[in-house]
Amino acid sequence: MKKLVLAYSGGLDTSYCAVHLTKDENFEVHAVSVNTGGFTKEEIHDIESKAYQLGVKTYKNIDAVHNYYEKVIKHLIYGNVLKNNTYPLSVSAERIVQAIEIINYAKSIGAEYIAHGSTGAGNDQVRFDLIFNTLAPNIKIITPIRDKKLSRQEEIAYLQSHGVDLSWSKAKYSVNKGLWGTSVGGDETLTSHLALPEEAYPSQLQETKATDIKISFVKGEPVAINGEKDTSGVIIEKLNNIASKYAIGRDIHVGDTILGIKGRVGFEAAAALLIIKAHHLLEKHTLTKWQLQHKDYVANWYGNHLHEGLYLDPVMRDLEAMLSSSQQQVTGDVFLTLKPYHFTVNGISSDNDLLQSKFGSYGEMNNAWTAEDAKGFINIYGNQTKIYQNTNNDD
Amino acid sequence: MKKLVLAYSGGLDTSYCAVHLTKDENFEVHAVSVNTGGFTKEEIHDIESKAYQLGVKTYKNIDAVHNYYEKVIKHLIYGNVLKNNTYPLSVSAERIVQAIEIINYAKSIGAEYIAHGSTGAGNDQVRFDLIFNTLAPNIKIITPIRDKKLSRQEEIAYLQSHGVDLSWSKAKYSVNKGLWGTSVGGDETLTSHLALPEEAYPSQLQETKATDIKISFVKGEPVAINGEKDTSGVIIEKLNNIASKYAIGRDIHVGDTILGIKGRVGFEAAAALLIIKAHHLLEKHTLTKWQLQHKDYVANWYGNHLHEGLYLDPVMRDLEAMLSSSQQQVTGDVFLTLKPYHFTVNGISSDNDLLQSKFGSYGEMNNAWTAEDAKGFINIYGNQTKIYQNTNNDD
Amino acid sequence: MKKLVLAYSGGLDTSYCAVHLTKDENFEVHAVSVNTGGFTKEEIHDIESKAYQLGVKTYKNIDAVHNYYEKVIKHLIYGNVLKNNTYPLSVSAERIVQAIEIINYAKSIGAEYIAHGSTGAGNDQVRFDLIFNTLAPNIKIITPIRDKKLSRQEEIAYLQSHGVDLSWSKAKYSVNKGLWGTSVGGDETLTSHLALPEEAYPSQLQETKATDIKISFVKGEPVAINGEKDTSGVIIEKLNNIASKYAIGRDIHVGDTILGIKGRVGFEAAAALLIIKAHHLLEKHTLTKWQLQHKDYVANWYGNHLHEGLYLDPVMRDLEAMLSSSQQQVTGDVFLTLKPYHFTVNGISSDNDLLQSKFGSYGEMNNAWTAEDAKGFINIYGNQTKIYQNTNNDD
Amino acid sequence: MKKLVLAYSGGLDTSYCAVHLTKDENFEVHAVSVNTGGFTKEEIHDIESKAYQLGVKTYKNIDAVHNYYEKVIKHLIYGNVLKNNTYPLSVSAERIVQAIEIINYAKSIGAEYIAHGSTGAGNDQVRFDLIFNTLAPNIKIITPIRDKKLSRQEEIAYLQSHGVDLSWSKAKYSVNKGLWGTSVGGDETLTSHLALPEEAYPSQLQETKATDIKISFVKGEPVAINGEKDTSGVIIEKLNNIASKYAIGRDIHVGDTILGIKGRVGFEAAAALLIIKAHHLLEKHTLTKWQLQHKDYVANWYGNHLHEGLYLDPVMRDLEAMLSSSQQQVTGDVFLTLKPYHFTVNGISSDNDLLQSKFGSYGEMNNAWTAEDAKGFINIYGNQTKIYQNTNNDD
Repeated sequence: MKKLVLAYSGGLDTSYCAVHLTKDENFEVHAVSVNTGGFTKEEIHDIESKAYQLGVKTYKNIDAVHNYYEKVIKHLIYGNVLKNNTYPLSVSAERIVQAIEIINYAKSIGAEYIAHGSTGAGNDQVRFDLIFNTLAPNIKIITPIRDKKLSRQEEIAYLQSHGVDLSWSKAKYSVNKGLWGTSVGGDETLTSHLALPEEAYPSQLQETKATDIKISFVKGEPVAINGEKDTSGVIIEKLNNIASKYAIGRDIHVGDTILGIKGRVGFEAAAALLIIKAHHLLEKHTLTKWQLQHKDYVANWYGNHLHEGLYLDPVMRDLEAMLSSSQQQVTGDVFLTLKPYHFTVNGISSDNDLLQSKFGSYGEMNNAWTAEDAKGFINIYGNQTKIYQNTNNDD
Repeated sequence: MKKLVLAYSGGLDTSYCAVHLTKDENFEVHAVSVNTGGFTKEEIHDIESKAYQLGVKTYKNIDAVHNYYEKVIKHLIYGNVLKNNTYPLSVSAERIVQAIEIINYAKSIGAEYIAHGSTGAGNDQVRFDLIFNTLAPNIKIITPIRDKKLSRQEEIAYLQSHGVDLSWSKAKYSVNKGLWGTSVGGDETLTSHLALPEEAYPSQLQETKATDIKISFVKGEPVAINGEKDTSGVIIEKLNNIASKYAIGRDIHVGDTILGIKGRVGFEAAAALLIIKAHHLLEKHTLTKWQLQHKDYVANWYGNHLHEGLYLDPVMRDLEAMLSSSQQQVTGDVFLTLKPYHFTVNGISSDNDLLQSKFGSYGEMNNAWTAEDAKGFINIYGNQTKIYQNTNNDD
Repeated sequence: MKKLVLAYSGGLDTSYCAVHLTKDENFEVHAVSVNTGGFTKEEIHDIESKAYQLGVKTYKNIDAVHNYYEKVIKHLIYGNVLKNNTYPLSVSAERIVQAIEIINYAKSIGAEYIAHGSTGAGNDQVRFDLIFNTLAPNIKIITPIRDKKLSRQEEIAYLQSHGVDLSWSKAKYSVNKGLWGTSVGGDETLTSHLALPEEAYPSQLQETKATDIKISFVKGEPVAINGEKDTSGVIIEKLNNIASKYAIGRDIHVGDTILGIKGRVGFEAAAALLIIKAHHLLEKHTLTKWQLQHKDYVANWYGNHLHEGLYLDPVMRDLEAMLSSSQQQVTGDVFLTLKPYHFTVNGISSDNDLLQSKFGSYGEMNNAWTAEDAKGFINIYGNQTKIYQNTNNDD
Repeated sequence: MKKLVLAYSGGLDTSYCAVHLTKDENFEVHAVSVNTGGFTKEEIHDIESKAYQLGVKTYKNIDAVHNYYEKVIKHLIYGNVLKNNTYPLSVSAERIVQAIEIINYAKSIGAEYIAHGSTGAGNDQVRFDLIFNTLAPNIKIITPIRDKKLSRQEEIAYLQSHGVDLSWSKAKYSVNKGLWGTSVGGDETLTSHLALPEEAYPSQLQETKATDIKISFVKGEPVAINGEKDTSGVIIEKLNNIASKYAIGRDIHVGDTILGIKGRVGFEAAAALLIIKAHHLLEKHTLTKWQLQHKDYVANWYGNHLHEGLYLDPVMRDLEAMLSSSQQQVTGDVFLTLKPYHFTVNGISSDNDLLQSKFGSYGEMNNAWTAEDAKGFINIYGNQTKIYQNTNNDD
């Protein structure tokens, strides 16, 4: 029997795949889902029992939270990566790690086939196919949803005809939960002008009294909240929990898909936004102007390439090397205040703070240089502009 | 008598200069201030009468709001320029335009000297000196505050001894008002960890009920609020007025001064933030991926060079040419909601919107390409990564 | 009868297409070739008579030299564009202009179909298809060579069987001539280590005595050789003629194709290399440091996008706007010496030269600043590095 | 007695300093020179004995060739760094390493003062002062040449009056020899239009018969010539020796000094040019498109910052991290041919070559994808341009 690994989410599309591949195509289906955060044990258990109901041979849930943080999120923090200055790449980042975990699993059990439930319209098919093809060029990719373009109704009817009568009530909003953010799609995101309504977001405002928090970083990585140390993965989860009560971190992103069309998606990513904004402020205090300048270039491209599925291009390792190097002094505490629907980043404290009164402070005269030094500096600093304007303006 | 133009603000430092240059140095002092927005007629009249009390020969107030918008702000909007992703360069931009207006005035009245009240510690001295030196290399620059490093008390005593007995009560916060934003300095901004208190900001929360507004753009320039057309300068003022009731657009910026030290400053720039965020969203709908990518590079450097006083370097005209070119299709309406202390950008409407259902929309299959096209695309798109990994991974 | 425009070169592939499309597919074939330089009247006449022998309905030769220069080459000069610092993009640039001319011709005669002879392996298919699809989405593209993958022998046999008995002796090297350079492929370019032999190049060394030439530029465009004015197109041709006697401008390029594989090609592009190197030196004398810096960024991407067929992305117009703006002062004469197989760029003369003794010259003290100015400059210029190292080195 | 370290070259300026600081200023002068390549033992011995003739307390020659290569040259190779696409930064790079060696020596012997012979006009004063100030803020810098602005004649007269009667015959060309290149200044380099004459260059053509050489690289570093292994420092020296017979690697550079004026300098840097061009070709075969793209950005800035004396800014370590990471696969042989006054880079051989026939080769159809794949790729690749042009062109 042909061994096949199915990237299984528990949704209608991949449930259809599970039955179709087993019953019609005669595959031995090994369902696998990858937890990149945001799933409770109960949810995982539900997915598992549903999988077996569909007739899969085995089901496996891979806990990839640690790998997700180490392989991708860490570098997104180092780079303060927000695609188009908005979106923390929650889904893009997740798919990469899921694809790597799934293909490694497929190789480990000797599967000859791998299936996923992506359509032919979006980014996910690219991310999955690219990583599968690169890491296991001999494993054949099967994509029933992309190939058959069935409607929801056809899929449900098919499942019922095969004795699967689960409830597939369509949620009004399609939600993708993950450690680095939750994406939300709905009728509004298909327009250009409508915002998502309050109820579309997974978190609802529960707390209206402002609260102060402190996030501590060591060499660019978040290591503690309010002085309480934890792994960075746990810190991200905790921040999501704390901030979700304030309904923080929501926005709508309009971006370019890998296929060249524009896409619009709502998201809620409290921890990602809090950490990135806090980390960025700490960097503004501890890095030189040129470090800030050049790491921005690198981080922007890191985000672009990640978004476009190029995680396995070796250039990503080069960009990571630079981002890591830049974090040597990014150590200190950042003070924030959470408020309903928004937050402020108030200030930082760091032994490496370059804004230090002992050397020179903005707006007042000091010991490091004299008025004569300043005049000499300005005189020479202006040389080229002066030469250019005086050379060219008299013609 | 030696003719001197004094950049005069009405504050203690430039008042000291006015008296000192007239009485001690025997200059014929022509005071000038440049209104780059934010000043009422009464405030201008006060500055004028104070100037004459100090003994200046003439006083002139130059209305530079139009020039300010055309020369600088327009390009900051085109580029969505926020220094270090935070600060709209309110003060940096203003100083450039002020310096140009002042030196042109000095040349027009045949002055041989020009004086300003900057200290030797900050950015402003660089901006003033550079532009003065470049546009009028033969006019000599006089900077008593930088040279003498007098204390506040010494300046007040000096003025009193010369019969000037104005009240110089020191405000707790030093505030610099302008069309593109108001900066705020105080004891807190001299630290790294303290936020500015509520009362430090010029605007106080007066309205708690959310309100929707619509900003319309034509080729990248804001042309109407809620359908009401106006010059861009007036639109900025109106937006500041509307948004100030919500205490929107506040933040603290930590940046690199031209002299290489870090500086920290609070600001409130409601119109700048609203326009830039609205404009950016409109661009995300109307520009191609590569336009967004490359104009960001250009805009970032436009902001950097402007901040560092290099407005007269011809590279700025080159960057402006590219930014202007990119705005041809940036026309449409943007919908925002103002709330206490923050705002949301909800969506846009534009004839040039590239997110259009007729061609292809994110997440569902469509007519522009087939599943086979998608597979072919992905197969070839992954060529290089596949070749690289297969070439190198077997060693 | 179905009207079809065939991009016809006179080679075996497009000759096969001409017969196949007429005889087997029943198209009314209108053959067209686009002269982007490098063709003599005789060569064009030969192509024409061959086309009619093959049975095409009409043949047209479009002279696109002027458009080629104005649309593309001009900007490649402004940007000193050499892909990977090597290749003047001779073929890439040509294809773009050819595709635009051909599709415009197809629209003008009301063709419903357009055919080209590209294979499925290279860059040209992408350039043609992209431009055809974008400018005329309703004209259907036909590509027999890509679809049928016939061998040379099969094509020749097919043509003979249809009474076409032209001589198709395979040249040892495939050569693509054009105004901006000639590409050369052969057995050696299929390896990574072999150079092309002397005889593979179209020009052979005929002159061993060095000769001096002067190229004059006005606002970045070449306008005269040795003082003799001409259109830029003619100047390029003349330079090719002069320099070909010295066998100048040869190299081998290894680059990334749009399809992700590496490609290797020899080329000879004397005029392109002479003009770019001369223009670049003139820019180093007349532009500011920041102009040089930022136009390089823009030019690099202009070349990349052009190479990858994205000429119609509006970002190209934005990049062109910046490149054009940067050329305002790039006016002057450049002095070169041609020698066998290489050349030197000796110096320039320009009214806009910023290297001028009157203001300050490298290596000796001068009037523009004092030793004290220099010390002040250095003191302040080093502020941030000093602060950083002193802040961080004691831990 | 005040202990002073003098950066001593053996030339007139630093000889003046040696005597002046000893006799007039009463310093205990410890002369030091740093050999960054290009000096014979005899030359070093001459400098030493001359130093003692001048009355210095001690003389030390520091061999910094290894440090020079490891700290700087290695990264210039990784980055293929040629300033403005021309100049290998021979002098800039050398000064940095010399300054570090000298200040470390000063600290090691407990000197309170450090002196150098730079004028107030050039780059070297900036490089020396910055590094001295940063690494030893408490050691005071003394610069008699910059401060006194003596003429050559005055210096010679002064030395004679103190009993030093060495011959100071002014060479027609001032030459600065180093491992990574030799700079040449003369009357011609003070103009914009004159080339340096043949005799100005240190190497003269001695060999007219072309010779082939092979340079081998391991992870980006040159490790062997014609199969003969050596340290990279020795390889550079050997290449200079081999190539100098062909008078290869000469050019004139026009660049922007740190002080904002333009400077013009001739140079001969055979090894630097040969290695960089060879290394670059090897990279074009072994790196992905995106690696080539992004390392160019990083390398360009690495060169700029190095040139401008910012070697100690931590951003340089970040850039080095990325450059190093990019070299993992840059291993292989490069084949070159040396000819009189120029050379060709013919090809490469590498296990990591991405231009490999087994996967797909430029210009012919292959197994990795089909014609249908190519059409699908192009269809989707063109999505955005098509959408943009169709959205916007009908208005």
